Amino acid sequence: MSYGSLYSHFRGLGHLQEVSAIVEWDQAVNMPEGAASSRAEAMATLAAECHRRLIAPELDDWLRAAAEQEDLGTWERANVAEMQRAVARARALPSDLVEASTRAEKRSEQAWRHYRHENDFRGFAPYLEEVVHLKRQVAMALGQALGCSPYDALLDQYEPGVTSEMIDGVFTDLRAFLPAFTDAVIERQRSSPVIEPQGPFDVSAQQALGRKLMIHVGFDERAGRLDTSHHPFCGGVPRDVRITTRYDEADFTSALMGVLHETGHAKYEQGLPMAWQYQPVGVARGMVAHESQSLLLEMQVCRGRDFIDFASPLIREAFPDGVARNPAAFTPDNLSRLYTRVQRSFIRVDADEVTYPAHVVLRYELERALVAGSLNVNELPEAWNELMQSFLGLDTTGNDRDGCLQDVHWPAGLFGYFPMYTLGAMVAAQLFATVQNRNPQLGSLIQTGNFQVLDGWLRANIWSRGSSCSLQQILIDATGEPLNAQHFKSHLQRRYGGMP
Amino acid sequence: MSYGSLYSHFRGLGHLQEVSAIVEWDQAVNMPEGAASSRAEAMATLAAECHRRLIAPELDDWLRAAAEQEDLGTWERANVAEMQRAVARARALPSDLVEASTRAEKRSEQAWRHYRHENDFRGFAPYLEEVVHLKRQVAMALGQALGCSPYDALLDQYEPGVTSEMIDGVFTDLRAFLPAFTDAVIERQRSSPVIEPQGPFDVSAQQALGRKLMIHVGFDERAGRLDTSHHPFCGGVPRDVRITTRYDEADFTSALMGVLHETGHAKYEQGLPMAWQYQPVGVARGMVAHESQSLLLEMQVCRGRDFIDFASPLIREAFPDGVARNPAAFTPDNLSRLYTRVQRSFIRVDADEVTYPAHVVLRYELERALVAGSLNVNELPEAWNELMQSFLGLDTTGNDRDGCLQDVHWPAGLFGYFPMYTLGAMVAAQLFATVQNRNPQLGSLIQTGNFQVLDGWLRANIWSRGSSCSLQQILIDATGEPLNAQHFKSHLQRRYGGMP
Repeated sequence: MSYGSLYSHFRGLGHLQEVSAIVEWDQAVNMPEGAASSRAEAMATLAAECHRRLIAPELDDWLRAAAEQEDLGTWERANVAEMQRAVARARALPSDLVEASTRAEKRSEQAWRHYRHENDFRGFAPYLEEVVHLKRQVAMALGQALGCSPYDALLDQYEPGVTSEMIDGVFTDLRAFLPAFTDAVIERQRSSPVIEPQGPFDVSAQQALGRKLMIHVGFDERAGRLDTSHHPFCGGVPRDVRITTRYDEADFTSALMGVLHETGHAKYEQGLPMAWQYQPVGVARGMVAHESQSLLLEMQVCRGRDFIDFASPLIREAFPDGVARNPAAFTPDNLSRLYTRVQRSFIRVDADEVTYPAHVVLRYELERALVAGSLNVNELPEAWNELMQSFLGLDTTGNDRDGCLQDVHWPAGLFGYFPMYTLGAMVAAQLFATVQNRNPQLGSLIQTGNFQVLDGWLRANIWSRGSSCSLQQILIDATGEPLNAQHFKSHLQRRYGGMP
Repeated sequence: MSYGSLYSHFRGLGHLQEVSAIVEWDQAVNMPEGAASSRAEAMATLAAECHRRLIAPELDDWLRAAAEQEDLGTWERANVAEMQRAVARARALPSDLVEASTRAEKRSEQAWRHYRHENDFRGFAPYLEEVVHLKRQVAMALGQALGCSPYDALLDQYEPGVTSEMIDGVFTDLRAFLPAFTDAVIERQRSSPVIEPQGPFDVSAQQALGRKLMIHVGFDERAGRLDTSHHPFCGGVPRDVRITTRYDEADFTSALMGVLHETGHAKYEQGLPMAWQYQPVGVARGMVAHESQSLLLEMQVCRGRDFIDFASPLIREAFPDGVARNPAAFTPDNLSRLYTRVQRSFIRVDADEVTYPAHVVLRYELERALVAGSLNVNELPEAWNELMQSFLGLDTTGNDRDGCLQDVHWPAGLFGYFPMYTLGAMVAAQLFATVQNRNPQLGSLIQTGNFQVLDGWLRANIWSRGSSCSLQQILIDATGEPLNAQHFKSHLQRRYGGMP
């Protein structure tokens, strides 16, 4: 009885969240600039309605009674637990704070598009200050309700169970390993330089190639679409997954790999258990799980030599003029070198998998300080530059566009998100090592464009499990180990050379 | 105090309606087919939330108190009146009747796609019978609540204040005038036949031309966009107007005029009073007012010789291959003949402005009889054919696909909508006659692509008035006369010849 009431209630909430997801996608892909402030208001009202439903007083009785209902199966119980979790988080925040922070974030995200373009951190700072100011209040209220630190409360919303302690463990391991390893790889790669394909590469040809490969690796176009936006992302809902990329006429490689990365997200969404659609237990486990799926596809599979062997003929077919200009740039050997080139660079989203963790550790340290109040927004460019110098030896002075203005995350209020990328990379390596061990023929299947064994394993072990248990449990069940950095390090050593 | 509460309440409702409008647009333009049933459910939940807010019990006290508040200005009073109207309509219908008729309409709309394709009226009749059966109950309940006849209650939802009596006056006038006039025009046009432009016309060239002209005539791209959909429409919200068209490689003329028609709708939306955004008084007056704006732009302006003179060079520039194939088809004389050709035809949406009213009068008579219960659904094909023979001399026997099955309106439950098209055409002519009289140089301005005088007048007299008074009042204020057919008849006589 009570479970049935909860089920209907959360189904209605799921419907409103679907609407919200589509409109958010629209905002990034279609919305004319003049609509920004109205849209921000409309979305704040919808968010408030979702919040209202999450804190509805009748839920108390239903949740209490459902927790004692004895006729519930494992998934129903897990569903009730996820409902409880969502309600506890929602109750922790007063509605006016939710509304104010949502509005500030939408405004700031729109402003960021402008000020990033203008390389104007000072102009943007007031928007970000407002976001940080409200985010601190959110984090404190959540931390109090959940019995953890404010920053851990932010982490928990993206992947339940992830803590600073867990991150510190992994990041310490990486910080000890990566600097010398990076030096060695860069040195090693010097002996076999990459030949750059010479553009222009027609955007519509890039689009067509991206779409072709996206479908090859398993994106279901009856349940999603590919579009263009400033910042690539995966949005929408499981039956209607919206992925985006951005194109550069001078370089096809980045947009192409971007599509494949987002396709990894999309396949997870499309593989979620449809019987539990709109229920809390039916959604993706969390953002570490999500990033693990995009990075498994991008880093483990698509940048690997087997996939490059499969994709090279399709890439050559897509850009006949480019091939004619410079055939040597389009050999599998060169494309493979190109897609595994290690370089210290300013932009996180363009970083290779060896230097990427440094970008994340930098942001992790800065955002923890911002949330704790030990760093002010106006000190951000300087603090960024300092860490960038120390981690990657790069100077961002006067170049905030490629420094602390480069990501949408903070402008959009996504504090606590960045660590998910690197934890996701760990999980991706851990999962791929397992599926490879159990299927020694996997490499040759990928070489011929056959992704069924891989997908079957991921569907059974990750996708179909939704949020029915913790990520740690999913990992132990799937790989026999909790989350750790060992497989990631082994992967790097295998791919980039035996050092150190 | 009470007014302030109402204002906030309706602002929130307006936000949810904005979200709904964007997602509806997305459904028509972007949504992958596999998402259809989930999306329908999500939208039903959002619609139910909007309805819940319209019948909220606290509104009673606020509305009563606001009606007595003495510090309200004219617009505030009009706003309260519009709120009362919306609440009264929402309360008039029991929710099980709303649910039953919505369900019947969705089923019937779906069945219609199949049976229309099969030209099978008998197969479709049971679906339409159910829709009509429930629509009669809806109309009766609304009529009782609003103190008018059932059919008038249906009209009123599309354009408040429009009654059968008003329509009868206009339609009687047209029925006396049009048959002989149509004969004369068709006879007259025989002497100067149209040269058909020969395709193919590249879709991207058509898109670019449509967009160029749309911006020329005043569409603000900072507050809207043009896309492609199966059926052209104007959706979105005033700060984010979404218009669509569909392209045919063999014929550029229809998509182009479609864009200009929808631009007329869009300019009305973009010109609504922004200070009253999200309030009931700030929205477009009604569907007669809306159709008047699209038809003013399409029929009065863009099919007129002055606009053709302005647009012809741009059209020729867009299709150099088409011009090379057949230069004579692209002269202003021929394009003008093409855009004012009169033909008796089966399909309403393809009809010219001279024969269009006959299509509407036919539907008006039949739908009134259906709602009154004096015509049964199974008698519809025969009754349709009889009127079609009498009005346009065309026989639809055995061809219901191009007869009573051609429109989605009745299958979707939209009874009372058709008259809006023809009343809109009357209003368009009446408004354009006035602005022309007051600005004798208007034609030469249009000829040079200057639409500022026209827009300024429409903005002041129509757009900026929102729903602050009735359409009849808007018309009297703007033109000095109530709605009548005289200016439409004069327009036809001027454009198509002095007869009769």
